[in-house]
Amino acid sequence: MTPKVEAAVACEIRDLSLADSGRRRIEWAFHSLPGLKSVRKQLIKTRPLEGIAVAVCIPLTAETANLLITLRDGGALLQVCAADPDLTQDDVAACLVRDYAMPVFAVQGESAVEAESRQVLAVDNKPQFVVDENGQLLRQLVRKPELAERLSAALIRSGAASGSPAEIPQIPVIRAGESISSRLFGDRYGTGQSLLDGIIRVTGLFPAALCVVIAGYGGRGRGLASRAKALGASVIVSEVEPVRALEASMDGHRVMSTMEAAALGDVFITATGSKTVLHREHFDKMKNGAVVGNAGAAALEIDVEGLARGSLSKRQIREHVEEYSVRDGRKIYVLCDGKPLQAHLNEPVPAAVLDVGLACQALIVEHLIRNAATMTAGVHAVPKELDQQAARSKLDAMGVKLDRLSADQERFLAGLSGQS
Amino acid sequence: MTPKVEAAVACEIRDLSLADSGRRRIEWAFHSLPGLKSVRKQLIKTRPLEGIAVAVCIPLTAETANLLITLRDGGALLQVCAADPDLTQDDVAACLVRDYAMPVFAVQGESAVEAESRQVLAVDNKPQFVVDENGQLLRQLVRKPELAERLSAALIRSGAASGSPAEIPQIPVIRAGESISSRLFGDRYGTGQSLLDGIIRVTGLFPAALCVVIAGYGGRGRGLASRAKALGASVIVSEVEPVRALEASMDGHRVMSTMEAAALGDVFITATGSKTVLHREHFDKMKNGAVVGNAGAAALEIDVEGLARGSLSKRQIREHVEEYSVRDGRKIYVLCDGKPLQAHLNEPVPAAVLDVGLACQALIVEHLIRNAATMTAGVHAVPKELDQQAARSKLDAMGVKLDRLSADQERFLAGLSGQS
Amino acid sequence: MTPKVEAAVACEIRDLSLADSGRRRIEWAFHSLPGLKSVRKQLIKTRPLEGIAVAVCIPLTAETANLLITLRDGGALLQVCAADPDLTQDDVAACLVRDYAMPVFAVQGESAVEAESRQVLAVDNKPQFVVDENGQLLRQLVRKPELAERLSAALIRSGAASGSPAEIPQIPVIRAGESISSRLFGDRYGTGQSLLDGIIRVTGLFPAALCVVIAGYGGRGRGLASRAKALGASVIVSEVEPVRALEASMDGHRVMSTMEAAALGDVFITATGSKTVLHREHFDKMKNGAVVGNAGAAALEIDVEGLARGSLSKRQIREHVEEYSVRDGRKIYVLCDGKPLQAHLNEPVPAAVLDVGLACQALIVEHLIRNAATMTAGVHAVPKELDQQAARSKLDAMGVKLDRLSADQERFLAGLSGQS
Amino acid sequence: MTPKVEAAVACEIRDLSLADSGRRRIEWAFHSLPGLKSVRKQLIKTRPLEGIAVAVCIPLTAETANLLITLRDGGALLQVCAADPDLTQDDVAACLVRDYAMPVFAVQGESAVEAESRQVLAVDNKPQFVVDENGQLLRQLVRKPELAERLSAALIRSGAASGSPAEIPQIPVIRAGESISSRLFGDRYGTGQSLLDGIIRVTGLFPAALCVVIAGYGGRGRGLASRAKALGASVIVSEVEPVRALEASMDGHRVMSTMEAAALGDVFITATGSKTVLHREHFDKMKNGAVVGNAGAAALEIDVEGLARGSLSKRQIREHVEEYSVRDGRKIYVLCDGKPLQAHLNEPVPAAVLDVGLACQALIVEHLIRNAATMTAGVHAVPKELDQQAARSKLDAMGVKLDRLSADQERFLAGLSGQS
Repeated sequence: MTPKVEAAVACEIRDLSLADSGRRRIEWAFHSLPGLKSVRKQLIKTRPLEGIAVAVCIPLTAETANLLITLRDGGALLQVCAADPDLTQDDVAACLVRDYAMPVFAVQGESAVEAESRQVLAVDNKPQFVVDENGQLLRQLVRKPELAERLSAALIRSGAASGSPAEIPQIPVIRAGESISSRLFGDRYGTGQSLLDGIIRVTGLFPAALCVVIAGYGGRGRGLASRAKALGASVIVSEVEPVRALEASMDGHRVMSTMEAAALGDVFITATGSKTVLHREHFDKMKNGAVVGNAGAAALEIDVEGLARGSLSKRQIREHVEEYSVRDGRKIYVLCDGKPLQAHLNEPVPAAVLDVGLACQALIVEHLIRNAATMTAGVHAVPKELDQQAARSKLDAMGVKLDRLSADQERFLAGLSGQS
Repeated sequence: MTPKVEAAVACEIRDLSLADSGRRRIEWAFHSLPGLKSVRKQLIKTRPLEGIAVAVCIPLTAETANLLITLRDGGALLQVCAADPDLTQDDVAACLVRDYAMPVFAVQGESAVEAESRQVLAVDNKPQFVVDENGQLLRQLVRKPELAERLSAALIRSGAASGSPAEIPQIPVIRAGESISSRLFGDRYGTGQSLLDGIIRVTGLFPAALCVVIAGYGGRGRGLASRAKALGASVIVSEVEPVRALEASMDGHRVMSTMEAAALGDVFITATGSKTVLHREHFDKMKNGAVVGNAGAAALEIDVEGLARGSLSKRQIREHVEEYSVRDGRKIYVLCDGKPLQAHLNEPVPAAVLDVGLACQALIVEHLIRNAATMTAGVHAVPKELDQQAARSKLDAMGVKLDRLSADQERFLAGLSGQS
Repeated sequence: MTPKVEAAVACEIRDLSLADSGRRRIEWAFHSLPGLKSVRKQLIKTRPLEGIAVAVCIPLTAETANLLITLRDGGALLQVCAADPDLTQDDVAACLVRDYAMPVFAVQGESAVEAESRQVLAVDNKPQFVVDENGQLLRQLVRKPELAERLSAALIRSGAASGSPAEIPQIPVIRAGESISSRLFGDRYGTGQSLLDGIIRVTGLFPAALCVVIAGYGGRGRGLASRAKALGASVIVSEVEPVRALEASMDGHRVMSTMEAAALGDVFITATGSKTVLHREHFDKMKNGAVVGNAGAAALEIDVEGLARGSLSKRQIREHVEEYSVRDGRKIYVLCDGKPLQAHLNEPVPAAVLDVGLACQALIVEHLIRNAATMTAGVHAVPKELDQQAARSKLDAMGVKLDRLSADQERFLAGLSGQS
Repeated sequence: MTPKVEAAVACEIRDLSLADSGRRRIEWAFHSLPGLKSVRKQLIKTRPLEGIAVAVCIPLTAETANLLITLRDGGALLQVCAADPDLTQDDVAACLVRDYAMPVFAVQGESAVEAESRQVLAVDNKPQFVVDENGQLLRQLVRKPELAERLSAALIRSGAASGSPAEIPQIPVIRAGESISSRLFGDRYGTGQSLLDGIIRVTGLFPAALCVVIAGYGGRGRGLASRAKALGASVIVSEVEPVRALEASMDGHRVMSTMEAAALGDVFITATGSKTVLHREHFDKMKNGAVVGNAGAAALEIDVEGLARGSLSKRQIREHVEEYSVRDGRKIYVLCDGKPLQAHLNEPVPAAVLDVGLACQALIVEHLIRNAATMTAGVHAVPKELDQQAARSKLDAMGVKLDRLSADQERFLAGLSGQS
């Protein structure tokens, strides 16, 4: 189904002629990736990945394209496939092929089966190193040991791998999703704002004077709550964990059970990681016109089926917004069918939020290649220095100067920690 | 050029078959217009506009459609044309024709000449009353006195009429744009957020950690500054008026001259109402990658031509974003060619923000029709009670209870004001 | 009862030996009065008040002392008495006498009768000009016309004069309390924070996680609400006026009737300007431990007597805090017996907040003396230029640069306003 | 030097007749300690400490008195001495002796030698259990093993013990200062506000429009920065650690080196835990009138001696404020001689902030007594359940309802964590 393209390298992409558009996107994203830019400059100088075969499975966007270019500029021989076909930007793929001679195997919207066949292509160069999203490429390599013979280390980008440990080869692995910078700038600063922006966009709602209920006060819930409050909403938080509940309260939010909040909220966003957080009993209490959405990881937080069973009819009233007419005449609006908003709102996470994480991933690749030989097999934490180096790259790019400890201060602090 | 439509009433619209889509839009907007809804309920009961011919010139959107329906439900016989053809929503027009039998003359994107010809159609029923945007219909009626013979009063929606007083007939006129509720909920709450949302959307920028420079600290500048700060930006304000400058400073923003700020900002937004606020000397000092946009009323605040003269080349890098390559290698990004962002970003003002203003306009129409006979010709201020009634309608709809003064308190307060 | 002091000028003060302490206070306040400092520099150069006899009645504090010194440095021959004996700082008075040879008649804590006798002394120099707090000195001069024969103009500092117009001589008068800068920096920025600080101080309460109810959303209520929210409180606002109620709602506060709020609040602050805002029915609904205080202008906003009648006993549990044991066992805490907190908490308004107002008053004095001859008798508004000049003085002192309109911009703006 | 008191129990206190005042203070604090109150109710029912001899060394204030009463009501036989004589409230001590028959050995302001002699008295009952501040009582018991023979466990309240491990007996010990609730509600919410309040109080400064420089972005620095920003200050943060610096930047603060900030700040607060953070080179760049204070743990963060050497003179201009006249004519103001502000400003930490920590300490005592027999000797972390139970006690008292996981949700979440 992929149209023919004439490219200088092996590839399977939508259309090479989209490359100009992709180039503009990549360049624009690059402006908001100063931290990655700073790491790239350094890799161009030192070329630590010179000649190393690296297979990459990643959501293929203008932002991650800049990570790929950075690795290429560090000397790596890349083969690339897409982690989530829905997110693939075809013009970006075209630009990588045309302007960077990168073998890319990814087409927007293709099926899971097609996507997997392209993952197989991406590892046919017997990679020495893998940059994986969730373990997809590693599973391919476990199945085809002949392609894994040069494999020496891997970076897994997400926080949690799906699949059992048995499916991971016996090599050193670092999970980037657990880096301080990823968690911090992803959940706390990034997701809160971009999800709220997305909800505002698809609904046309205006947060000021609305009552917004956030279920769950983890990183994402905090981000949502603080941004909603900043935009003039009155925020209610529900939680199961008392210390978090108390924090929410000290942060100026009202805290109550989801059931009590059900009658008060105009907008409900779940961000708990649990299931069935909003169900029939909540819907029964909600105001006419209430809007519900799921910012959790799985499509389980809102019992949309239960709502459908209690409704006379439903219809799509706007893109991403389904209207349920409940038996008593009220209407309840469900965003993206209760599926995770971050994946289904098509609301791009701002490049600036991804920057430190991408810079850190580039540094992890360099670190693994330098040190794989001496590392034990199994999962390793992100070394704290890499997190700091990524943050420092960004600060440098922003022109921010840090204080430096004097020798005297270092001695003093060393003394303190020695003592305790 | 307008396609044929088969409708039960006279009309000139794009396509009657779009009415379903328009209906969904109108209904969705209605959910965010509780204040107008509450006024509508009352007009349905009292029918104060029964049988009165009203010509309306208005930007034709899902939100203003609800004002039209409210006036119709109050008994008015409407004829409607579009104030700004670019903003006309063809599906909304179709729904008004099909489902409300409203004579509508408006097609999205038509030329100024076509638009004017439709204004003529809109007044061919010898209106007794006019709801006008900027005085367009009134000017038509001055030119065709035979159509104006029943004319008894007018509401002008915008704050400032274009054209000279000579072009306004000798009737009582109320300018709705000067109502407290319009200014308050328009500029202060509405524009600040929706413009900032629009800028974030078209640029993909993330405000946290950016330095945002706002030129001008009027209602709009204040709204922009407070929202940018709420989203984590570091805000700089420039002003010419010292009391405003001091307020900005007490509000926690840094205040300095635009020239000093030029070297510090990542994003610049002008909201002064003046001209040439950002010019060559500022561009010369800006950082590589600086983004500039104009939130003022006219296209004069940013000297885009000056920037072009100082640039080697320019290209469109994203929709609404033009990249200028300045001679020294820096790139400067201009939003919407320096034209007013609110008109050119296609960022809809949220219905909730328009609600009180629309409710107030419906009340003004009722007021004018009841009182036109006893009012003097010329421009009148919006009666304070109407502003309060509009606000009260919204609060009622939100379920908010106000305190009421007891007789004793009223006497006490009357005594106080008598004394001073 | 005043102890003997040996001073070079006529005076009636507590103790000249306190002058060192007073000097330190005056100097410290001077650091936070950069706007006044800047006006003072200018008056020292131009000496516009050279040799003019000025009688002053003012609350005698370190901050107002700097205004007195400024007027003296501008050439005035001052005689000074205290507007509110409770606020008189004896050490400051001593310093003015010893170091500035200023005739001061003021002793902390003296009776109203004594204070009035000193007002008489303050005008015994047949003042040409009066700086009055509420009209006290003017009333003396109406009674003793022989002392008023040189009187040519007056500045009244407060917003509202007590007493009838008949008691004001037929001269030009400017009320400084109505200047933009006084209202802005007094109510909006100053009072909100300093009252909240005072309440926190006397109660030891911690605003985060508390529910704070503000009755009234005028300047002072807004300031209180925004500061309480900033400190992590959940704020409820009650109002009688719908536009203000809607603003409160858009500002992110919950709005409801005082009666509904009664059951929810931990702390209640009235700032309405009305009377009996909190009464028996509210007290009946309050939670055990509720704290109530009055930030209004008169001691009438809280019905303390009604609370007392409904209580079994009361006792002072902390300075400024009275505990009422209500019949059902609950305890309610009243601050300062329901009297206006700003006057009774002894919470000094920060000098920085008073600065622009004091600078403006110095400029008004200069203006009156220059222009009294050509001004009509009666009350005049504060000229807008003086407000701006005062604000500019402060900005200059802060090193803030304003933009200046170019000739082209001035023409453009003149054109705009000419047109409308 | 202690005056004779006639008390029913052994004690050494200032004056038994102060008990009424102490009683009012204890009762008032009790209102802001709902979490502790809730634990107390439970201990009254279960009496888990029945007849157990407990020696306590604690700062003796109205708040900690409520912890003592809680332990007594749980059945403990207490003997109490003061951890820091400067903080001892004599009236509180008197109330504990008179109304609770508690043997208290503590007098405000006594010398370290006297204080130590009273520590010896506090352990003369051969305590089975010790509540210690920093290890003082444990050191006494190591020296007098005959008194330690019944000793089975200890709670140390502070985060870091002074003294070597050798000085701690071989028993199970829990350090309460490391509990989540202590760190969270102490540093993040408590210290930020109370320190800023204290600085505002002693200086009379008004944060709005001031530039406040915070050195160090740990818990305390964050709290200071967010409160200062909330009050309208423009905040600059300096840091040595890049991730923290980036967080500060995303939180909307400007970040730069302390040296760059030196020329910009109006107020400087150090909160680094390091030494010599502000020194001669910084002072040389500061504006005239700059104010510096130390919110760190030790008196080393500001080089006050260096400032003194570079100054012509110094004098105390207000309580807690020293004015240094630098050679070039500028004046720099140092708070509390550069000593830690939290200890020297006499700014009480609000009871509400201490509540969860005190509740947690009461729960730890109960936990230790129940479990000491089966715990190993050495330092143990605070069990997470106790933190949660303390938080829950507070939420209960606030009337906040948490969500509870359904059996289905628990299974689901267990499945998730089993999988990863």
